[in-house]
Amino acid sequence: MKSNNVAIVGASGYSGEELVRLLLNHPHAELAAVTSRQNAGLSLGQVFPKFANHPRSKALFFTEPRTEILARQAEVVFLALPHGVAAEYAAPLLRAGSRVIDLSADFRLKNEAVYKDFYGHDHPAPDLLDKAVYGLPEMRRAEIKKAALVASPGCYPTSILLPVLPLLVAGLIKPSGIIADSLSGISGAGRKAELDYLFVECNESARPYGIPKHRHLSEIEQELTAAAGTQVTIQFTPHLIPVNRGILTTLYLSPGAPFTDAAGAVAFSEELAACYAKAYGNEPFVRLLEGSALPDTKNVAGTNVIEIAWRLDPRTGRLIVMSAEDNLVKGAGGQAVQSMNILCGFPETAGLI
Amino acid sequence: MKSNNVAIVGASGYSGEELVRLLLNHPHAELAAVTSRQNAGLSLGQVFPKFANHPRSKALFFTEPRTEILARQAEVVFLALPHGVAAEYAAPLLRAGSRVIDLSADFRLKNEAVYKDFYGHDHPAPDLLDKAVYGLPEMRRAEIKKAALVASPGCYPTSILLPVLPLLVAGLIKPSGIIADSLSGISGAGRKAELDYLFVECNESARPYGIPKHRHLSEIEQELTAAAGTQVTIQFTPHLIPVNRGILTTLYLSPGAPFTDAAGAVAFSEELAACYAKAYGNEPFVRLLEGSALPDTKNVAGTNVIEIAWRLDPRTGRLIVMSAEDNLVKGAGGQAVQSMNILCGFPETAGLI
Amino acid sequence: MKSNNVAIVGASGYSGEELVRLLLNHPHAELAAVTSRQNAGLSLGQVFPKFANHPRSKALFFTEPRTEILARQAEVVFLALPHGVAAEYAAPLLRAGSRVIDLSADFRLKNEAVYKDFYGHDHPAPDLLDKAVYGLPEMRRAEIKKAALVASPGCYPTSILLPVLPLLVAGLIKPSGIIADSLSGISGAGRKAELDYLFVECNESARPYGIPKHRHLSEIEQELTAAAGTQVTIQFTPHLIPVNRGILTTLYLSPGAPFTDAAGAVAFSEELAACYAKAYGNEPFVRLLEGSALPDTKNVAGTNVIEIAWRLDPRTGRLIVMSAEDNLVKGAGGQAVQSMNILCGFPETAGLI
Amino acid sequence: MKSNNVAIVGASGYSGEELVRLLLNHPHAELAAVTSRQNAGLSLGQVFPKFANHPRSKALFFTEPRTEILARQAEVVFLALPHGVAAEYAAPLLRAGSRVIDLSADFRLKNEAVYKDFYGHDHPAPDLLDKAVYGLPEMRRAEIKKAALVASPGCYPTSILLPVLPLLVAGLIKPSGIIADSLSGISGAGRKAELDYLFVECNESARPYGIPKHRHLSEIEQELTAAAGTQVTIQFTPHLIPVNRGILTTLYLSPGAPFTDAAGAVAFSEELAACYAKAYGNEPFVRLLEGSALPDTKNVAGTNVIEIAWRLDPRTGRLIVMSAEDNLVKGAGGQAVQSMNILCGFPETAGLI
Repeated sequence: MKSNNVAIVGASGYSGEELVRLLLNHPHAELAAVTSRQNAGLSLGQVFPKFANHPRSKALFFTEPRTEILARQAEVVFLALPHGVAAEYAAPLLRAGSRVIDLSADFRLKNEAVYKDFYGHDHPAPDLLDKAVYGLPEMRRAEIKKAALVASPGCYPTSILLPVLPLLVAGLIKPSGIIADSLSGISGAGRKAELDYLFVECNESARPYGIPKHRHLSEIEQELTAAAGTQVTIQFTPHLIPVNRGILTTLYLSPGAPFTDAAGAVAFSEELAACYAKAYGNEPFVRLLEGSALPDTKNVAGTNVIEIAWRLDPRTGRLIVMSAEDNLVKGAGGQAVQSMNILCGFPETAGLI
Repeated sequence: MKSNNVAIVGASGYSGEELVRLLLNHPHAELAAVTSRQNAGLSLGQVFPKFANHPRSKALFFTEPRTEILARQAEVVFLALPHGVAAEYAAPLLRAGSRVIDLSADFRLKNEAVYKDFYGHDHPAPDLLDKAVYGLPEMRRAEIKKAALVASPGCYPTSILLPVLPLLVAGLIKPSGIIADSLSGISGAGRKAELDYLFVECNESARPYGIPKHRHLSEIEQELTAAAGTQVTIQFTPHLIPVNRGILTTLYLSPGAPFTDAAGAVAFSEELAACYAKAYGNEPFVRLLEGSALPDTKNVAGTNVIEIAWRLDPRTGRLIVMSAEDNLVKGAGGQAVQSMNILCGFPETAGLI
Repeated sequence: MKSNNVAIVGASGYSGEELVRLLLNHPHAELAAVTSRQNAGLSLGQVFPKFANHPRSKALFFTEPRTEILARQAEVVFLALPHGVAAEYAAPLLRAGSRVIDLSADFRLKNEAVYKDFYGHDHPAPDLLDKAVYGLPEMRRAEIKKAALVASPGCYPTSILLPVLPLLVAGLIKPSGIIADSLSGISGAGRKAELDYLFVECNESARPYGIPKHRHLSEIEQELTAAAGTQVTIQFTPHLIPVNRGILTTLYLSPGAPFTDAAGAVAFSEELAACYAKAYGNEPFVRLLEGSALPDTKNVAGTNVIEIAWRLDPRTGRLIVMSAEDNLVKGAGGQAVQSMNILCGFPETAGLI
Repeated sequence: MKSNNVAIVGASGYSGEELVRLLLNHPHAELAAVTSRQNAGLSLGQVFPKFANHPRSKALFFTEPRTEILARQAEVVFLALPHGVAAEYAAPLLRAGSRVIDLSADFRLKNEAVYKDFYGHDHPAPDLLDKAVYGLPEMRRAEIKKAALVASPGCYPTSILLPVLPLLVAGLIKPSGIIADSLSGISGAGRKAELDYLFVECNESARPYGIPKHRHLSEIEQELTAAAGTQVTIQFTPHLIPVNRGILTTLYLSPGAPFTDAAGAVAFSEELAACYAKAYGNEPFVRLLEGSALPDTKNVAGTNVIEIAWRLDPRTGRLIVMSAEDNLVKGAGGQAVQSMNILCGFPETAGLI
């Protein structure tokens, strides 16, 4: 199978570093360029000692992010940049013929008014919004295959959308009253020199933040609304917990048709199992837990897998769905590589299993 | 002020150890005896090196838990024993004239059928259930003062009841649809040699457990129901996260009267603030957070304080209340000492601030 | 017993915060002022939510560090400032009649040339060097009692000097070839917004740093040399490990007179035990471990205690001595309060046990 | 290139689990069998959810460890068993024609008297000691290639031998007075349900253990002695620190010929660099750090790389060498796979980079 050259713009944050890790070992992608303003001129191994022993490491030097050069070097360019910055790079890269996979939030929303509402400023490249495909492979494989611009989903959204979408589409849950309670590892805050993310401030700490209107709500609700065919507004509470990687999401959902007795619960449970099996039974990166197993971030750390389990509570009539993923892999770099595999015609699991 | 002699039965678990720490430095209580079957014969300092420099340490030896001896040694006896075991000790100690503060779940429920439903066996001393006072000082100060037997609340229940009860009593929230999502440090699982609680299994891990019917639900619902005057059934999801101490609870509540616009939200917010100020404004161990502050377990670790904050979400019409406590202090040993202070007529903050 | 007013200059770093914790609950010291340039105007509880429930908290506001005002407010002023900054404050405070306990390295060295060699700049107040007492209470109690200016020892030096000094003075070890290998919690790096101390960079990491010439060597060698009566030069390797608090030091020492057989080892072991018992048998904050016990930072965290244990290795003829302390308590704030207790004539353990 | 079938006996401990991870993704090895007494009958994915999505997972069931069956299933059998148990399996497997890679200490020593001295019982299969090759690939590549029985080195020995051996062979350091001070992650203690390794007992803890005569000393000294041509006895102090994976070793060494001035230090430093470059310049799994870089366990976690750095201390005349490795990879499973690659004629980095 042929290989493609790929490049990463902004390879010095945690998502960028994870992309480097995945792409260095990818059987069909050749990491041709990495950029970083602050590290320009340094070799990959100098910035990330952990990669210094890789055969490609010494020959790979960080450069300034120059789109005209990148477009010549790589058929696919990953943007691992802060919100608002990625948009500047996407347009010239697309014009120059590169395909772009953006890990920021810049192209995830279809509606620029919603963008402004949640991100606080005008969208920097609104004409591209229509062209971007929301890169959740399990849901939009065919669109990703043809896309020039993939907006790779956020870490929290992935942990919420994959468990909820099939149930919503099948009408097994009500579109109203959804609550998502999420726990994230500290890498989710990015590699930023701020007091709040110092070891001593995070270790032995658990704390909510960004409530009640976290930015990721905009893309979550956009996708849920599209799936439900009716406006969906959810409750979302993120928390920081002292792990490097991982998101654990607990979802509180109302069954579409209430179950009224034990037999009803059993029947509903079977419908849920069938729905998930149909949606994900053949998905390589979704693990539907059986028996007494419940999601645990340590079982997905470093992998592109999302774990999903569910329980019915006969006391309250509610459905509890839980998911676990690695925020830097399925929630960022791994999912982006999965999109690249689809887009380039590689096996979808290449470099990811 | 006079002092009392106190004893701890089962002083080798995490709650018992925390009681030792608090009572060794208490200005009015004299720790007269500590018991532990497996450590009988060893000095306090041998079992817990951290206490070895305390003046009392070398003279204090672990003994077998013999009720007749304990009753002679101590006016107040703390039981820090597993569920089902504490009940055996309570009756003889009470007969012998000791006052008993039990940290297990044995005397927290009023209804022995509920006990059997949640704990899986008949209650070992049902005749004592009526005599026990549920020892949540902020709610039952007067009853605790006169009690012979105090059932000190569980760690999760404390983190849920203190934020919810005033709102429920005031009618500010609906009694239905309450969801409590809690994160607990690993000490909550007790000092048990089980694979699930090994460092490597807990570090870099976040996981739900015990759903949907955790045992603590029984006492939470009993107290909420009593306060609401109507049956309250809640949703409760506990999670384990890699910290030693701390519980962070996020509560999803429905306002009693929905707020329909921004002005309504402001008015409701003021009602909430007034309600909490009335309930806890003078409570030494409740910290109502102001401004942008949110609860953080690191700010309560090692203290008897519970932090509470709340937010209204105008998008969903829901009220989010969050609390943080140290599961071993306000959730166990500290709260028990607070009850002792009340019961013995000491200043309520003695030894706790 | 009378009380003194005390003040803390630079109360927003980790050592300053620990001083606040200890002094708020001190039976004889009244915390009269806290200063911090960046927090001036905010109340203690706003900056440190963990102290917000303390009765003194709401009335205590951070101010600019103005020496003339501080000298009126407090008989004893603690300086918890970076190296080189503390010296500016000491002189005017001393002139105004305050007694000063400095937690920085500014007054620990007697020789300004050594200061320049290790700290890279001229000493800012060389005339004060002679007046300062190196505040290791177990060694210099009488001098501290009379001192106007106490230079409280560094965290690493305390963990090395207390185990080594008695052996050196007694001639039980050779003054040459001493190796100190230390592990420190991340709080030792201070509350600084630098990438190296982010949670993700420290968690799941162990790393040496600052070798081979860490600044603390200067004071360690000054004190060892004074005790030995001959120049002592040691090897010192600090490491960072992912705990909030704690220093664990392992010392490799050569017996003064080599033991040549098992009987010799037993005899030497008894000499060691006698030497330590004489030096520290009555010290409230030194715990000499017996039997199979070895130091563990978790047993000293939050306390002013240093644990010491030793082992002879008959295979190599070497003596291994190990110590554990809390770098923020015995290694910083606690030791400073211990000095204050001595200096003010309070019981030495007041507020510390 | 052809593939081989491989099996793992004792695949449920941490080393065994790591072997599973590496072998599932190995390009030339087919994991044909996994055994575990306690898990017999369960699928790989049931025991280790993290592997459940691997294509091989559902078809791979844990079995009882029956040597005759294993020998038919696999050309290479890995033993990941406790000390003393591995020896029982090696003999029948070898007789049946399998090649054996043992991760325990059973075949690392040449001298059964030394085994008895350090392990406390007679060696269970002394006739095999001569046949086993000490599987440190960087040192014994040719022997491993021909070996029927490979004794894969311990985690601590690897972290000490790789940095020290080249210097010793080249005469750059004295064979006497070597000190190795090591920090290990908690997985080094194995997956054992013991109180000492509970999360709460290890988190926020740093502690030495097993001094002064840790069992690994026997193999370290055997290999150092063989390299030096004279008896080498070293000082070794292991410590436990709260990370899952990783060993950080700091070595204190005496230069063979003392350097007496700055010029001598520069010259010696160049000799050291040349020695390491010659020994490891082409080794894929040794990273010689340059410039100001120092080893950090987070940079080797999950990889088969060992990092090495060195510093001369002109103040003491000593050489400090530091290494970092993942105790479960280069210190266990990864190194064993590296030996398998050599033994089977696969590229040495296959499945490891």
